[in-house]
Amino acid sequence: MKNLFVKDLKPGNEVTEFFVLRKKEIKEYDGQKFLKLELGDKTGRIEGVVWDNPEHIHDQAHTGEIVKIKGWVTTYKETPQLKVEKLRKAKEKEIDLSDFLPTSERDLDSLYEEFKKVVSSVKNRELRKLLELLIADSSLVEGLKKTPGGKLWHHAYVGGLLEHTLKVAQICEKAASMYELVNRDLLITGALAHDIGKISAYSARGFFDYTDEGRLVGHIVSGDEIIDRKIQAIEGFPSDLALQLKHLILSHQGQLEFASPVVPQTIEAIILHYADEMDAKADAFTHIIKTQKSRGKRWSDWVHLINRYIYLGEEEENE
Amino acid sequence: MKNLFVKDLKPGNEVTEFFVLRKKEIKEYDGQKFLKLELGDKTGRIEGVVWDNPEHIHDQAHTGEIVKIKGWVTTYKETPQLKVEKLRKAKEKEIDLSDFLPTSERDLDSLYEEFKKVVSSVKNRELRKLLELLIADSSLVEGLKKTPGGKLWHHAYVGGLLEHTLKVAQICEKAASMYELVNRDLLITGALAHDIGKISAYSARGFFDYTDEGRLVGHIVSGDEIIDRKIQAIEGFPSDLALQLKHLILSHQGQLEFASPVVPQTIEAIILHYADEMDAKADAFTHIIKTQKSRGKRWSDWVHLINRYIYLGEEEENE
Amino acid sequence: MKNLFVKDLKPGNEVTEFFVLRKKEIKEYDGQKFLKLELGDKTGRIEGVVWDNPEHIHDQAHTGEIVKIKGWVTTYKETPQLKVEKLRKAKEKEIDLSDFLPTSERDLDSLYEEFKKVVSSVKNRELRKLLELLIADSSLVEGLKKTPGGKLWHHAYVGGLLEHTLKVAQICEKAASMYELVNRDLLITGALAHDIGKISAYSARGFFDYTDEGRLVGHIVSGDEIIDRKIQAIEGFPSDLALQLKHLILSHQGQLEFASPVVPQTIEAIILHYADEMDAKADAFTHIIKTQKSRGKRWSDWVHLINRYIYLGEEEENE
Amino acid sequence: MKNLFVKDLKPGNEVTEFFVLRKKEIKEYDGQKFLKLELGDKTGRIEGVVWDNPEHIHDQAHTGEIVKIKGWVTTYKETPQLKVEKLRKAKEKEIDLSDFLPTSERDLDSLYEEFKKVVSSVKNRELRKLLELLIADSSLVEGLKKTPGGKLWHHAYVGGLLEHTLKVAQICEKAASMYELVNRDLLITGALAHDIGKISAYSARGFFDYTDEGRLVGHIVSGDEIIDRKIQAIEGFPSDLALQLKHLILSHQGQLEFASPVVPQTIEAIILHYADEMDAKADAFTHIIKTQKSRGKRWSDWVHLINRYIYLGEEEENE
Amino acid sequence: MKNLFVKDLKPGNEVTEFFVLRKKEIKEYDGQKFLKLELGDKTGRIEGVVWDNPEHIHDQAHTGEIVKIKGWVTTYKETPQLKVEKLRKAKEKEIDLSDFLPTSERDLDSLYEEFKKVVSSVKNRELRKLLELLIADSSLVEGLKKTPGGKLWHHAYVGGLLEHTLKVAQICEKAASMYELVNRDLLITGALAHDIGKISAYSARGFFDYTDEGRLVGHIVSGDEIIDRKIQAIEGFPSDLALQLKHLILSHQGQLEFASPVVPQTIEAIILHYADEMDAKADAFTHIIKTQKSRGKRWSDWVHLINRYIYLGEEEENE
Amino acid sequence: MKNLFVKDLKPGNEVTEFFVLRKKEIKEYDGQKFLKLELGDKTGRIEGVVWDNPEHIHDQAHTGEIVKIKGWVTTYKETPQLKVEKLRKAKEKEIDLSDFLPTSERDLDSLYEEFKKVVSSVKNRELRKLLELLIADSSLVEGLKKTPGGKLWHHAYVGGLLEHTLKVAQICEKAASMYELVNRDLLITGALAHDIGKISAYSARGFFDYTDEGRLVGHIVSGDEIIDRKIQAIEGFPSDLALQLKHLILSHQGQLEFASPVVPQTIEAIILHYADEMDAKADAFTHIIKTQKSRGKRWSDWVHLINRYIYLGEEEENE
Repeated sequence: MKNLFVKDLKPGNEVTEFFVLRKKEIKEYDGQKFLKLELGDKTGRIEGVVWDNPEHIHDQAHTGEIVKIKGWVTTYKETPQLKVEKLRKAKEKEIDLSDFLPTSERDLDSLYEEFKKVVSSVKNRELRKLLELLIADSSLVEGLKKTPGGKLWHHAYVGGLLEHTLKVAQICEKAASMYELVNRDLLITGALAHDIGKISAYSARGFFDYTDEGRLVGHIVSGDEIIDRKIQAIEGFPSDLALQLKHLILSHQGQLEFASPVVPQTIEAIILHYADEMDAKADAFTHIIKTQKSRGKRWSDWVHLINRYIYLGEEEENE
Repeated sequence: MKNLFVKDLKPGNEVTEFFVLRKKEIKEYDGQKFLKLELGDKTGRIEGVVWDNPEHIHDQAHTGEIVKIKGWVTTYKETPQLKVEKLRKAKEKEIDLSDFLPTSERDLDSLYEEFKKVVSSVKNRELRKLLELLIADSSLVEGLKKTPGGKLWHHAYVGGLLEHTLKVAQICEKAASMYELVNRDLLITGALAHDIGKISAYSARGFFDYTDEGRLVGHIVSGDEIIDRKIQAIEGFPSDLALQLKHLILSHQGQLEFASPVVPQTIEAIILHYADEMDAKADAFTHIIKTQKSRGKRWSDWVHLINRYIYLGEEEENE
Repeated sequence: MKNLFVKDLKPGNEVTEFFVLRKKEIKEYDGQKFLKLELGDKTGRIEGVVWDNPEHIHDQAHTGEIVKIKGWVTTYKETPQLKVEKLRKAKEKEIDLSDFLPTSERDLDSLYEEFKKVVSSVKNRELRKLLELLIADSSLVEGLKKTPGGKLWHHAYVGGLLEHTLKVAQICEKAASMYELVNRDLLITGALAHDIGKISAYSARGFFDYTDEGRLVGHIVSGDEIIDRKIQAIEGFPSDLALQLKHLILSHQGQLEFASPVVPQTIEAIILHYADEMDAKADAFTHIIKTQKSRGKRWSDWVHLINRYIYLGEEEENE
Repeated sequence: MKNLFVKDLKPGNEVTEFFVLRKKEIKEYDGQKFLKLELGDKTGRIEGVVWDNPEHIHDQAHTGEIVKIKGWVTTYKETPQLKVEKLRKAKEKEIDLSDFLPTSERDLDSLYEEFKKVVSSVKNRELRKLLELLIADSSLVEGLKKTPGGKLWHHAYVGGLLEHTLKVAQICEKAASMYELVNRDLLITGALAHDIGKISAYSARGFFDYTDEGRLVGHIVSGDEIIDRKIQAIEGFPSDLALQLKHLILSHQGQLEFASPVVPQTIEAIILHYADEMDAKADAFTHIIKTQKSRGKRWSDWVHLINRYIYLGEEEENE
Repeated sequence: MKNLFVKDLKPGNEVTEFFVLRKKEIKEYDGQKFLKLELGDKTGRIEGVVWDNPEHIHDQAHTGEIVKIKGWVTTYKETPQLKVEKLRKAKEKEIDLSDFLPTSERDLDSLYEEFKKVVSSVKNRELRKLLELLIADSSLVEGLKKTPGGKLWHHAYVGGLLEHTLKVAQICEKAASMYELVNRDLLITGALAHDIGKISAYSARGFFDYTDEGRLVGHIVSGDEIIDRKIQAIEGFPSDLALQLKHLILSHQGQLEFASPVVPQTIEAIILHYADEMDAKADAFTHIIKTQKSRGKRWSDWVHLINRYIYLGEEEENE
Repeated sequence: MKNLFVKDLKPGNEVTEFFVLRKKEIKEYDGQKFLKLELGDKTGRIEGVVWDNPEHIHDQAHTGEIVKIKGWVTTYKETPQLKVEKLRKAKEKEIDLSDFLPTSERDLDSLYEEFKKVVSSVKNRELRKLLELLIADSSLVEGLKKTPGGKLWHHAYVGGLLEHTLKVAQICEKAASMYELVNRDLLITGALAHDIGKISAYSARGFFDYTDEGRLVGHIVSGDEIIDRKIQAIEGFPSDLALQLKHLILSHQGQLEFASPVVPQTIEAIILHYADEMDAKADAFTHIIKTQKSRGKRWSDWVHLINRYIYLGEEEENE
């Protein structure tokens, strides 16, 4: 449990505290090796340096792990910097992940209950069997609860994947009621599974990052592999249904340029794609507006990912 | 009222019948002028030629108008062709537009009742006033009823614009209930108005075509002009609200490349865009699947507009 | 009238002076709120901070307004910073806008006389009537005089819109004499009106910025609305002429990607587009060459907007 | 075994012969249903029609199957057409696939021997184990032998996949000898496996076509699934090695737009991508030049897939 | 001199006449070789076939040459076709190129006089010297006179290159008077030389086509080579001036995608680019409007090269 | 010969040393002119300032030249800065270029011997003659030895052009043995010549930079001009061979967007393109991996030029 957070560090402080190790790199200055670190918690990041025994300290922990630091705060180029004297990996019992990662405002267990409720609404025997295999896999369930919906852009908090998944399912449920040709159970199963590969693609140890799998394989194909392995384990799963379900996962980004290896070719796939986009963008806009609409600001900063400013709206009347 | 339709014309037939004049062009063959026509009704198209008095007959009607033809069916390059002897413009009372244009399966009046019901759900005073001005304008209401949702691709039938508008509003209603920051009345008004410019951009006389305004100005800006003129007529319409509403219309195609002069910059605009896309694509997929899923065909023909085949699914019945 | 300009501020100076308020944002440091400002005049920008009563001072003025400041200059991260003690909105009579905004080297009134001369060269009755309505609208005329041709890239100074408009008209006049099918009066009217929407899209109070309308509607559609309203006021304006004129405004950026909702479809539109491009780029190149060709520099810095370096040319012999 | 090939069919011929059924579709003409077929063999295609019992005959075979036809040749629009009286599915023993599909000029078994030789050159224990699992899977080996390298563009013949795979491995072998950091066994394994998903993505029954899996999942992900399943079956396969091998398969098209869900991020991946491109394009150019360089033609027809003409070269001297 | 033109050929005609040989290809039908030709003149094209001695006749002429044909007109698929019995290459004195190629409405010699007048307006010694070398080269001058401005799209007639060049120079002259930094002589020389490579890139023997050089090198680099060789022949041509002039030629298409290997980096280059675009597009629009504005047509056919319809305008009142 | 390198400069040092002058610009601070410099050597860069006689010192040397500096090291914004008192151009004999530019690990002369060996493997008489003219041109040979393969991205060291050229030739040799239609001598000559224009396009005086020719003409066309001039000097060089060779140079970047004015249209051209790409990318990946794979780093920094991270692989040693 932390007492001192990054945002509260002031020059002169002596610090004995836990941080997540975000980056580490051996560098050299004037012929002398030193270790440059990036440390963080849920309130921010601070640069760290180690001048004594940099190589030894480098080997104490991997990036992504929580470490216990002893050192003091100085300034370098008018920015706070941590001079680190000692560093060791934290023990499991010393860590409270919520000190490091932002977390859904909603309770994870109740979100997961809602997820299971959607599962139980699926009538198709094989799809229901598949979904039950997924939630019988405790490592998947644990992953589902702790993985964010995205790294930066939308639902970037523990529980975000669950929240996003449920909202996409909700929009799909609405669409299934509006368009007669839609196979509702297929669409809902696709909605529940569409981002399941993010469990392998993101790490959510001390901060959100891509895993090697996230970069080398990508969350879309990771999700396809998870589903493929479960389907392999179900005797007699209809091959046509398997292809259509995989197609939902593989095509949900909608275009090749957005890393889907195939484009939506079924009515369920095209609906899932827009449901996914609508929820992701609506959440991202919501997050930006909430964060940036401080008094007197009417437009967001430039949003690089979508190349535009976002209108924050007029100030409320009663201010 | 027609008796004989294009799909039933056979070589040798003598024909005295109404058709819509889709194209006309004076051409020359071996030093002699003739008039080449394209005639049609809701069942198809047939080429026509006029060898006598081509220039006189050319001036009898404009393209898009219904004409009465006297002639007979021959073949040219093994394709039926109408040799036209006489041609005159049809009189208003001779015409039943439903012989020429496909029409919604739903009743236009009941669709419009539904539209008015959505209007009456808007509580915001100025938006409500604006919507009431729109439905008080009988030429707009008439346009709303007869305009298709698109020329080729989705909702391409009389009443299509109304159907599409209502479905988009329905998805937006759902989204308004899901995302806390959404201004529901603004979003619903945007949904109702987003394609209103199609009334000026499409002609739906004897066949669906772009008007000059549809090509030179475009349905997006035409819609903005309609709304701007109504807003000018409302004393004290808040300028911020006006900008946001126009923004919904102008940005609803989502990207500059799709002819929106601005990209969505408000949460309502981003939701409206995806609601519009979802309904347009779901309808287009539905139409393709219904039309092409004949026995033994499992994939659609290549769909040029979206560069893909669409999966029609397994045959159902007795397999 | 200013005495002290941003480029002359030195650490230690006590300052009681007018600046334009470019940005303001309430922030927090170590549990204490403060107000971060960006202040400027025509010579540059400086960061400002307010530690006492930040929220009260925040409410004294909007961004874009001229304010009177009392404070002193310090340095932060080796960059000058203004510690602000007092801030109030400037009174109209205290302000000389030319202290804040760069201005055309040419006299605004003589530019406007030239504009009116071009207006009077238009013979077509309706177009002439329309142009006369525009110049009878004093707020439009005022806007025309003070609006820049662009925010950053070309003609970025008071009077720039007038200068750009006149040059585009000059090129169009030449083209009208070269290509027989061109409707000269239509083309010239389009040239005069093509950027008129910038009057609503840019604010030129204390610095150049986009207005809400500039972002949510865009200068192209704003221009179309201005013309549409004037045309509505002219009885019997031919609808075909109206469409063609609007088409000139709407298509002048030449491509959908550049925010034109329609592409040029008439010979006048294609000419206007290239005339506009030629003048905008020639002015931008001129500005970059003049500004950067200091002794010993033969190439400009990288120009992000067009992704290239610009060749400044050899040094003159006699230097 | 066929006697009469499509290219030799002449109007008036009575025909009792085997063809592959490429397409079938129930249509209607003048109120009467008929069945429209596309029939083919390795020399070409011909349209077929069935007027009697079209629905019954429709159900005799699936597209892609070889059928025995009784009918006669007529002409329709000056093009030969087969009027079909009888149609039944061919029996396995009646079929010689080489009548229908183009085949490698090289012997399939000797190509496969060469493939096994490359397998045996891999020293890394796990990769070797994996490759041996692949060639122990008889359905994979059969697929490997009969699948083309591409549907239209390169190596479009039985054995083409083997030929292409071996050439890519050959270029990779060269590259491994040139670039010191390359993991040779990993690169060669990637070369051997990169297109293995084509076995599931193409059908090579009576003509080359995409399977449902080829369209809904795509050959890249199908290949990844095949490898993933084999890796799951190998105890202790290093996860890092697995990720890198999958990465080779997934990234080999080089860009997202070309349906790779990830771009090459390792030195082996970037080399495999260019080796694949070089062989595919060199084969396609070779095929076009060989096919089109008839006397007097110095340039190919327009090649749509790559938007260019190909230079066929000067005529040989001795002509 | 021709008596009978393609547009006047009627089935049954016996024909002994000159045509340009546009294409030739040996084909096979039913085991028998035949020669398929495309023949043409300035009024159109017709297919030809040779059944006797196809290989011998094939060798009588190259594509692009004028041939004398003996044969008769039949129909094939309801389209006229020439059965060719005899074919020989035309003699130089038998040919009048104006029977085959469309020609400028203006006199070639007077166009060339105008070109020389512009040359003589250039004061800069080296540029003037260079231009004089160009016009001293009789094969270049001959090429300049007979080459079209483009193959299909603009100025597609003998003399078109000269006309286009002069109009571009005219616009550049205007721009030079408007923008102070422009080096007028450099810009005018660039305008005169910008398309000179088309002389090598197009053949204008019996019909307009690309030469091998036009395809393998391209008109832009061919033009650069012509200028480079002339500059090599001028002692002491300033290297900086040479680079800037070449830059004008190389960058005049404005963007890499349009085959310019460099983008415009000087003020002269950016102006030349837009002058070139404006004249090319204005001519293309003029051509389309003139050709297609027949009575009753208000919009052009779809123009593939620029993906749009062109508005032809209202019919004149008095027709 | 240098004693003190940039990476060893420490605040307080008095410095009398040679550096390359990378940039120079006259600026103004508080009404006083000063000269801002960028100085460098092969170990790094440092900012320099001159307060006394800035304009005089500005004129002592051009950018790209080696200068001798007298001054002392201070810090500005916590970064070292050189206050320069004296500056003069270095004399030829004082300079050892290897102090300034990174150099191939291989011996330049032995690389060049290898190059000549490839030349001597070319049997075709004219191509051999052409290559011999190239290596008989001592300024070309000198350029070949000292020019880098690229400015930043691959082979960015003296000798890099030679190394890259040889590796591309090696891959082409392999391809020539694999694809029967390839003209080996033409392909090898193209490989040797493909980047020869970089000799004119890059300067390698004290640091690597583009020359004016590199920017205004580009290395592709510069290479074409070099080859064109040599071919002009060879009597009877076959024009078809000349076109094909130029085509290899002009098309080797593969796509218009990458500054090739023509796309590959021959089998040799398509192979050369991929050989070039493979070697350039393999070298770039190698360089990044070698430079960045320090202990504990498993992924490279973001590589802007290709928009991705590169996987550096697992640590080796004690695993």
